[in-house]
Amino acid sequence: MLATRLDLDRIRAARRVIDPIFLNTPLYQCDALGRQLGCTVSIKLETANPVRSFKARGTELVASLLTDQGRSAVVCASAGNLGQALGWSGRRRGLDVTVVASRSAPTAKLDRIRALGAELELVDGDFEMARERAVSIAHQRGIRLVEDSLDVETCEGAATIGLELADAGSAFDTVLIALGGGAMATGVGSVLKILSPDVKMICVQPLGAPAMTRSWHERRVVTTDSTDTIADGVAGRYPIPEVLNDLLQVADDAVLVQEASIVAGMRMLLEHTGLVVEPSAALGVAAVLEDPDRFAGRHLVTIICGSNVGLDDYHRWVRP
Amino acid sequence: MLATRLDLDRIRAARRVIDPIFLNTPLYQCDALGRQLGCTVSIKLETANPVRSFKARGTELVASLLTDQGRSAVVCASAGNLGQALGWSGRRRGLDVTVVASRSAPTAKLDRIRALGAELELVDGDFEMARERAVSIAHQRGIRLVEDSLDVETCEGAATIGLELADAGSAFDTVLIALGGGAMATGVGSVLKILSPDVKMICVQPLGAPAMTRSWHERRVVTTDSTDTIADGVAGRYPIPEVLNDLLQVADDAVLVQEASIVAGMRMLLEHTGLVVEPSAALGVAAVLEDPDRFAGRHLVTIICGSNVGLDDYHRWVRP
Repeated sequence: MLATRLDLDRIRAARRVIDPIFLNTPLYQCDALGRQLGCTVSIKLETANPVRSFKARGTELVASLLTDQGRSAVVCASAGNLGQALGWSGRRRGLDVTVVASRSAPTAKLDRIRALGAELELVDGDFEMARERAVSIAHQRGIRLVEDSLDVETCEGAATIGLELADAGSAFDTVLIALGGGAMATGVGSVLKILSPDVKMICVQPLGAPAMTRSWHERRVVTTDSTDTIADGVAGRYPIPEVLNDLLQVADDAVLVQEASIVAGMRMLLEHTGLVVEPSAALGVAAVLEDPDRFAGRHLVTIICGSNVGLDDYHRWVRP
Repeated sequence: MLATRLDLDRIRAARRVIDPIFLNTPLYQCDALGRQLGCTVSIKLETANPVRSFKARGTELVASLLTDQGRSAVVCASAGNLGQALGWSGRRRGLDVTVVASRSAPTAKLDRIRALGAELELVDGDFEMARERAVSIAHQRGIRLVEDSLDVETCEGAATIGLELADAGSAFDTVLIALGGGAMATGVGSVLKILSPDVKMICVQPLGAPAMTRSWHERRVVTTDSTDTIADGVAGRYPIPEVLNDLLQVADDAVLVQEASIVAGMRMLLEHTGLVVEPSAALGVAAVLEDPDRFAGRHLVTIICGSNVGLDDYHRWVRP
């Protein structure tokens, strides 16, 4: 019996609140990629939408609740994708959105947050510093703070991906999920553990940002002093205890991958699917590249979670 | 009163035959692209599927009819995308598929046709030569010849894109459509002229392969001696009279664009949507780039019809 914070009925209800533009995303087999990887690979594509990541599934839910409550402003810390998504969902509903991000976040992400009309505040330091600043803005202004992965709506929004995977009824046996704060992993995992209990849920994190993976293995919060990865979207240092608790119940494994594998994964996705993806979205392919025997002959789903990447960075990493 | 060869009821019924993996494709607004182009731009994405183009909507229909008729083999000429799509649809139904293509078709397309298990025969010369050879194979072997754009199923399959655009009920006023043989243009146009008659249907073809566009303007078949364009997917020389007749009823305009604009369009799609597209899929953006005043302030839909492009070619064209 699962005892995560997530609720299947609420997740089902979320589908009626989230703008359909973010739902029922493509799920399709990519033979060319599968041949290269020695297994069957299906792609769940979360980037063909106005914010180019899965995050709006959660912010649609959050923003809808806020407007129901008569709120008019909201603040979040973001590595870049949550801020865009909240900017989009807030703009649509007339909410004032403030996003706090690290000055070192990708320019492409910061520019797109501004373009959505959100107020963007930059902090020196990393995502965890942005989180602290967002907390103090929320207190000062008396406005709602959205905390990615901690706020159950961010997890339950992402969990609608799990419903779509379960509904698809295809024969996949393994889902590879990028692991950062844990909203997507606990969201998708909570649904699949109920509706498709035989499917293995494997989380993938960069070796350079291993806090949540280490925490999962040690079954207690393990923090790190720094991160060192191009996968900016998943580079946290302080796992949230409530999220870890959920993750312990729904993940079958959590693995770490090297930067070179992430880049190789991005290159393979470019070549075999024509998709330019951000590093976090290549973590699943990276995991297969590092342990092909483990996945040989399996049918994997890898969630392409975001494509917000600056082309200069992308070309520097991916060019042969 | 429209008098095309296409039938709205058959098009609606086609949705029950086509594998859902090819249906209900993403339709979403891309603000960053719109800002660059001075208008509102929505993308209809036809590449997030196993064959990376819209063509399987038609081949699903064709292959389903053939199996209903107890046929076991089929042949087509292809610039590359139809062959992949027929290969996919035929493999799924146990049909023997033969594809005839030009030796100069993109290697990426030819490799993917072979990978799908189709028999691939290459001819010297261009697509029109492949068409002749496919006709003679069909006669020799007594098997069904699939003729893109002439066979109404290829048009009615593509027309399901039009149903999805009409169903979306969004506020777009113009659809930009890559024009080659005319299956997609007559398909989508036939539906929109009935269900969304105020929407303008503008066909776009390369200046280097202008036969159908010239034919549309002159209201009679105009052939050309050669083609010279990187947009291999739309490079025919002999417009089909029946298709021209349909196109005359459903297109509001047909324009020609330069190669440099196609490349600029591919680059903009890469930068602002993260999509690697084949040249044909950039024709819509190219049309806006060449005549921005005409489209200023409008809400366009551009159909991203294919992404089968070799990365070497792509980088040679698109790299800054």
